[in-house]
Amino acid sequence: MKVVVLRLGHRVVRDKRLTTHVLLAARAFGAAGVIYSGQRDEGLEKSIRRVVEIWGGPFQVEYRRDWRGVIEEWRSRGEVIHLTMYGVPIQEVIGEIRRSRKDKLVVVGGPKVPAVVYELADWNVSITSQPHSEVSALSVFLHELFEGRELSKDFKDAKLKVVPQPRGKKVVRLREAPA
Amino acid sequence: MKVVVLRLGHRVVRDKRLTTHVLLAARAFGAAGVIYSGQRDEGLEKSIRRVVEIWGGPFQVEYRRDWRGVIEEWRSRGEVIHLTMYGVPIQEVIGEIRRSRKDKLVVVGGPKVPAVVYELADWNVSITSQPHSEVSALSVFLHELFEGRELSKDFKDAKLKVVPQPRGKKVVRLREAPA
Repeated sequence: MKVVVLRLGHRVVRDKRLTTHVLLAARAFGAAGVIYSGQRDEGLEKSIRRVVEIWGGPFQVEYRRDWRGVIEEWRSRGEVIHLTMYGVPIQEVIGEIRRSRKDKLVVVGGPKVPAVVYELADWNVSITSQPHSEVSALSVFLHELFEGRELSKDFKDAKLKVVPQPRGKKVVRLREAPA
Repeated sequence: MKVVVLRLGHRVVRDKRLTTHVLLAARAFGAAGVIYSGQRDEGLEKSIRRVVEIWGGPFQVEYRRDWRGVIEEWRSRGEVIHLTMYGVPIQEVIGEIRRSRKDKLVVVGGPKVPAVVYELADWNVSITSQPHSEVSALSVFLHELFEGRELSKDFKDAKLKVVPQPRGKKVVRLREAPA
């Protein structure tokens, strides 16, 4: 089961850090890649590719202006799951979503999500019905989808790797790190 | 078991949105309140208090310049858990952390966490050893700590409440909403 995240409505100046966190969370919690729409942001792409270069992959970043086209393509090849505080509680539907085994597009919005996204999605899923963050919604959704197995995911071709410690920091070099 | 989140090193301009997301995630995923250090930010406090006023509580926001004092106080009344990508994997220690039943201070950093935090913490815990986000680390940690019960937490004195829907948005007014 391949999972790709679609981040809607990125704005270069206002959203750079939050979108970076969304994309890094997507990678860390087991997604195969992200597609983002809104404004093209080469700095964002570069910073994510640099994380992949250092900490491993595979993990793809792609810009697509036509987010609706992305969702429609995925409706024919897999399932589309839109994370929203207005949707059906994750605890009621995650079992069924896991069992389908289809590839999944997980859609996370910015502040204004067009109403058609709710219509195009196979599932509108809430991670609590409270206002919080697309970063937390995505992370907890992927953590539940992968049932915690993502926590020990191995990343390929990493140059650096953390060796977990009760105190302090230990990082080992696995191959030549980029300058 | 009461859980309070300590957010270190807030910077008013650079971190406003991310810290807002950290604080909202703390509330949504069941913490009783947050303390933040770094720069005092009355706009941040006001926006969180407004969320509590509308969507319910209780949830406290407090500024403390002396973050080290906060950690030291908590060492004598409960446990201090520092979330860091360099720490011990959550899946190895969450059972023991849950069983202690002591009140907990969950510390999340900004970019530069002083080394002494690693020393003062009872636990340095990683939510994956990959770079991602303090928002995702906090959310997944609280979700694991509360074993998913936080997903259906009831918030007191809410003025608005979402009624989950498979499509679209439904919000009901429980009492007079503020203008």
